[in-house]
Amino acid sequence: MDAVRVIEIKKSIFADNDRDADALRGELKSKGVYLLNLMSSPGSGKTTTLIQTINRIKDQVRIAVMEADIDSNVDAVKIKEATGIESIQLHTGGMCHLDAEMTRQGLENLPLEGIDLVILENVGNLVCPAEFDTGSCCNAMILSVPEGDDKPLKYPLMFSVCDLVLVNKTDVLPYFDFDMDKCTEYIHMRNPKSKVIPICAKTGEGIDDFAGWLLEQVKNWKQHEN
Amino acid sequence: MDAVRVIEIKKSIFADNDRDADALRGELKSKGVYLLNLMSSPGSGKTTTLIQTINRIKDQVRIAVMEADIDSNVDAVKIKEATGIESIQLHTGGMCHLDAEMTRQGLENLPLEGIDLVILENVGNLVCPAEFDTGSCCNAMILSVPEGDDKPLKYPLMFSVCDLVLVNKTDVLPYFDFDMDKCTEYIHMRNPKSKVIPICAKTGEGIDDFAGWLLEQVKNWKQHEN
Repeated sequence: MDAVRVIEIKKSIFADNDRDADALRGELKSKGVYLLNLMSSPGSGKTTTLIQTINRIKDQVRIAVMEADIDSNVDAVKIKEATGIESIQLHTGGMCHLDAEMTRQGLENLPLEGIDLVILENVGNLVCPAEFDTGSCCNAMILSVPEGDDKPLKYPLMFSVCDLVLVNKTDVLPYFDFDMDKCTEYIHMRNPKSKVIPICAKTGEGIDDFAGWLLEQVKNWKQHEN
Repeated sequence: MDAVRVIEIKKSIFADNDRDADALRGELKSKGVYLLNLMSSPGSGKTTTLIQTINRIKDQVRIAVMEADIDSNVDAVKIKEATGIESIQLHTGGMCHLDAEMTRQGLENLPLEGIDLVILENVGNLVCPAEFDTGSCCNAMILSVPEGDDKPLKYPLMFSVCDLVLVNKTDVLPYFDFDMDKCTEYIHMRNPKSKVIPICAKTGEGIDDFAGWLLEQVKNWKQHEN
């Protein structure tokens, strides 16, 4: 296994997370770095989706990944081995989410001057990460077919803060009672602007759509650089 | 749809959750009520598992269910419709877990003198619920096959506080890279005493084992009543 750096994140002591998040976003803007905050339940396929996507676009944009986990570094190692890009592991020490200051601690360990796109894989959790602005330019999430089409009803905040929902594991649709139309309707109840892309990280279905969307986001962010 | 009661849970103001939890457990003991705290990720199949299990044992023990969710009451309605037993919905108002005081607020809405077993379906989340003793007699969790066999590595506390792990959705084992032996080994790394039962709530596989285990737990708890 390749060695990856493991960063032990300290609990934030700042009271005003929204202000910190806005400040961080401003700094990223001035540096021309686009930060995507990717959230989901445990086991929805975040890491596999990232590997597929990064391998499609790594020749067009310079990418780094921060893998947040309570423990273990398996995800950061997997990303590094499968894509060759810079990948660091953030240990949250039991904490269930990242906020802006914790995200900043991670970013300080990356050579941002040579990077266009940082993807933050947040802690696997549909509740707490939705409550904290990380300072990212965009929130996205993965919902996997086996979790069920009713999740937007049960985790309203998560779906309302995300502008992109990837519906993953479409290859197992025949084995689950999952109604894609109903799911899309529930997602739009929470956030009418949300873009929904069905994908299968295992077979590659839909990954080109996600990769295209991501490249466009990075391009727009850099074009309007301060 | 049958109407179910929805209880809006208030945030606890008590500082010492462990003491509250022990006190609650003592009261449940004196009343001969066994409380099972069932945890899992979103979409692992908690509600379907409960319906299957309750229908097998509801003639032998008197059961009530408390469904904790951030929002919606779909689970409590489903349980009531499919089993006919008492089922109430606890709304956590955005909170990601239940503690002992919040659990007590739920129990106060049940006629405990006529109940042997209360099952608390905790908020779908592998992080925060593990940090708070609810006052239950036992913690159990469901891990579903699509989530992956590596979850005990990533969510150590959840697996270490549970004495029973149900590995659900075994019917889709052929479609996922899930190694049951490796998963069991990881679970036992976190809690060597943990009992692991593979189940499929959809087909009923393994539910008799879980139902038998649960009946035994309730019997033992009541036999050693104060």
